[in-house]
Parts: sequence; structure tokens; C-alpha cells
Amino acid sequence: MINVYTTYLENIEKHDIYVLIDTLRATSTISTLLHCKIKSLEIVESLEKAFLKKNKILIGERNAQKIKGFDYSNSPVEILKNKEKLNGKEIVLTTTNGAKAFNKISSMGKVIPLSLLNLNSVYEYVKDYTDIGIVCSGSNGVSSLEDLYTAGLFLRNFKDVDLNDGAKIALSIANLSVEEIKNSDHARTMKRLNLNEDIKFCFKLNVFNEVIIME
Amino acid sequence: MINVYTTYLENIEKHDIYVLIDTLRATSTISTLLHCKIKSLEIVESLEKAFLKKNKILIGERNAQKIKGFDYSNSPVEILKNKEKLNGKEIVLTTTNGAKAFNKISSMGKVIPLSLLNLNSVYEYVKDYTDIGIVCSGSNGVSSLEDLYTAGLFLRNFKDVDLNDGAKIALSIANLSVEEIKNSDHARTMKRLNLNEDIKFCFKLNVFNEVIIME
Repeated sequence: MINVYTTYLENIEKHDIYVLIDTLRATSTISTLLHCKIKSLEIVESLEKAFLKKNKILIGERNAQKIKGFDYSNSPVEILKNKEKLNGKEIVLTTTNGAKAFNKISSMGKVIPLSLLNLNSVYEYVKDYTDIGIVCSGSNGVSSLEDLYTAGLFLRNFKDVDLNDGAKIALSIANLSVEEIKNSDHARTMKRLNLNEDIKFCFKLNVFNEVIIME
Repeated sequence: MINVYTTYLENIEKHDIYVLIDTLRATSTISTLLHCKIKSLEIVESLEKAFLKKNKILIGERNAQKIKGFDYSNSPVEILKNKEKLNGKEIVLTTTNGAKAFNKISSMGKVIPLSLLNLNSVYEYVKDYTDIGIVCSGSNGVSSLEDLYTAGLFLRNFKDVDLNDGAKIALSIANLSVEEIKNSDHARTMKRLNLNEDIKFCFKLNVFNEVIIME
């Protein structure tokens, strides 16, 4: 059984493992950080908690913008440019939507962050599970096209699995053109903030092969 | 601007008017009740509140089944069979999902219940609004195919309107076959309870022309 939840606000059941999606950009940032061979990753919801973490690298955004006093924004492109500096470092990440979603589901079980950037590698990791919950973060408390698109592409790998309505919704969205997905509400917000490079990057498929299981 | 919310649990913005969808079955029951020329309709969340309403007709379900002590189930087919008895009556309705959704959005503004049964009539009523929120009830706190399908068919009537991601999701689901929609999670629950006649009826298009605005 694979259940997709179109936002983390839905009534999420107990599953053996959870896959978390926040395509623009939290889980894309996480995939990129893993590729930079960081030492550890902690996700926190509030700025207060982030600033309490001494001697760690602070990465995040509020309303898609960099946070004053933070080391880096929630930007995969910025992260990748600083790959050498992040090698071996302890990271604290806070984002507007993804961190809230992570907070809710990490209290329920193991969580694997998924982005388009590491889609096949996450599939290889979870393919033998028979009970998977895929949670889309959405954008500001509503469903987002880009998260359902990622969920749909991910689901295409599975054969002969029972799917809930949410999974069927994701598969339908995966049939839309990538240009339509790149014109989603949150992508348009990012375009207004000149974050076009991040949008472009987050839609690349399978450029990284790192996977992390968070508890 | 038209925003579709895939469940009432999403972060619903302020709109000039709201359209509420619970295809299986609350808003289909409401459309049928209006056709029966009832005197009034009140929607309540709890059984306690329903039983306090003296001298009114009690209609509802819990987990898709009739409630002990109630006059009728949340069944459009059962309602239609009793059309004459319901004429001129004051009705109290409580359902598992639709009543919760109604309770949340009725505190925000005017609500028009929409089903496939009265789709064109509701469109005629709201077509001149420029800011509409369409709220899908979903099923037990998750998105449902049948509500997004109804939202998508409804949206096809509008031309040149800004749509949020939720609305684009609904339009995508409206492209699925009606047989696929009739195999949704909630429809399968209803089939197990031998409620096939209600499923069949709820997917009829534009058999009624009554509309109600609830506040």
C-alpha cells in the first residue's frame, strides 16, 4: 500500500516508512547537502531553535528569502557552489513549509527526504517496503503542483501496488508538462524573487545518488 | 481568481464566496433535498446538536452508515424516494466529512453546496463572482478523487480566470475516466456497504437546478 498525502495537514496514517517531498526547495536542498558530504543534518521549525545551535552551519528561508544571520539560504544552487566549505560540517536547516511537514511526520516514524534530484536512489532504498506514506509538504498550507509531480514520477517506479486517492492524484499530475509544473504558484513566487536558477536546478532528474533516513 | 482547496484542512484564504463539494454524499444529498422543496436546512457537526433539534427531520451518517434514531440516511436515493414526505419540512443534516468542512468555511463567508447533480445551476449562480474559493471536503481528512473531479468539471465552465495549483489539480483529475473516479477510496467503502445505487446517482450530471446559499 502506498498512500500519498497532498499536504502534511491531511490525516496521515501510520506507515512503515515515510517519504517527504518539498520540491521547491527543502528536500532539493537536503539532497544537495548530502551530496556535499556534510557530517550531520538537523531540521528545526523555528528560528529560535536554529540560533541556539552553536558552531553549526545555519541554512534556511522564510517566505522563500534568506534569513538574516544565517550562513546560506535554502538554495540548492547556492549550496552546490559552496560544496567544499560544507564538506564534513554539521548543518541546521529551517524552512517555511518543509520543516513543519518534517516535524509532524518524524514524530510518526522514519522519514526519507525525496526530491527530483535523487528520485531513483530513494526508490532503490524504499522499493522493498510494502507500506509507504508519501507526504507532500505543499506551499503555505495548500497542495502544490511540484510536490505532487515529484510524487507521481516516484510512483511510476512501483508496479502492482495498492494506491490511495492521493497517489492517483499524483500520477495524474505527473502527466502534466514540466513547463506547467514550473509555472506553479510557488515557482511563480520564486520567479518574482529572481530565483530562476533554483527552479531550473530543482527540476533536474537523478543528478545525485545520496539518501538519508531521518528519525 | 479561483482557488481550489483539496481538503477543508488546507489553509483557506478569504474569498467573496465559497463553493463546498462533498460528492459522496453530503452535497449530493443537499441538492436532492432542495429538489424536494424542503422548508429549511441546518448542518450540524455533532449528533448531540442534531438530537437537540425538536420537531425537525434528522438526516445523516457516521462512517457512511445511517444513524440510529435518525429519520433518513445521508442517501440521495433514499431522500428522493421520500420526496413527498420531505416537502415543506425543516431538515437537520450531519455527516462525517461534509459537516466539518461546512462548519469551517461557513464561519468565513457565504457557502454554496455543489454536487454533480446541480453543477450548471451553481455555475449560473456564481459565474459573475471574480473571487471564488472551492473547498473539497475530502474523505476522512485526505483528498478524494470524486471531489476534485466535481471541482474540475465545474471549473471547465470558467474562461480566462486565474487558477491556483489546487484548481489545476482539479482540472487534471477531471480528465480521468468516470469509472476511475467511481473506484475512489470512498466509493469502494460505499460499495462494501452495498451503497451502489447512491454512487450511481451521485455521478449523474445536472438532474436538479436548485441552489442554496448558506450562511
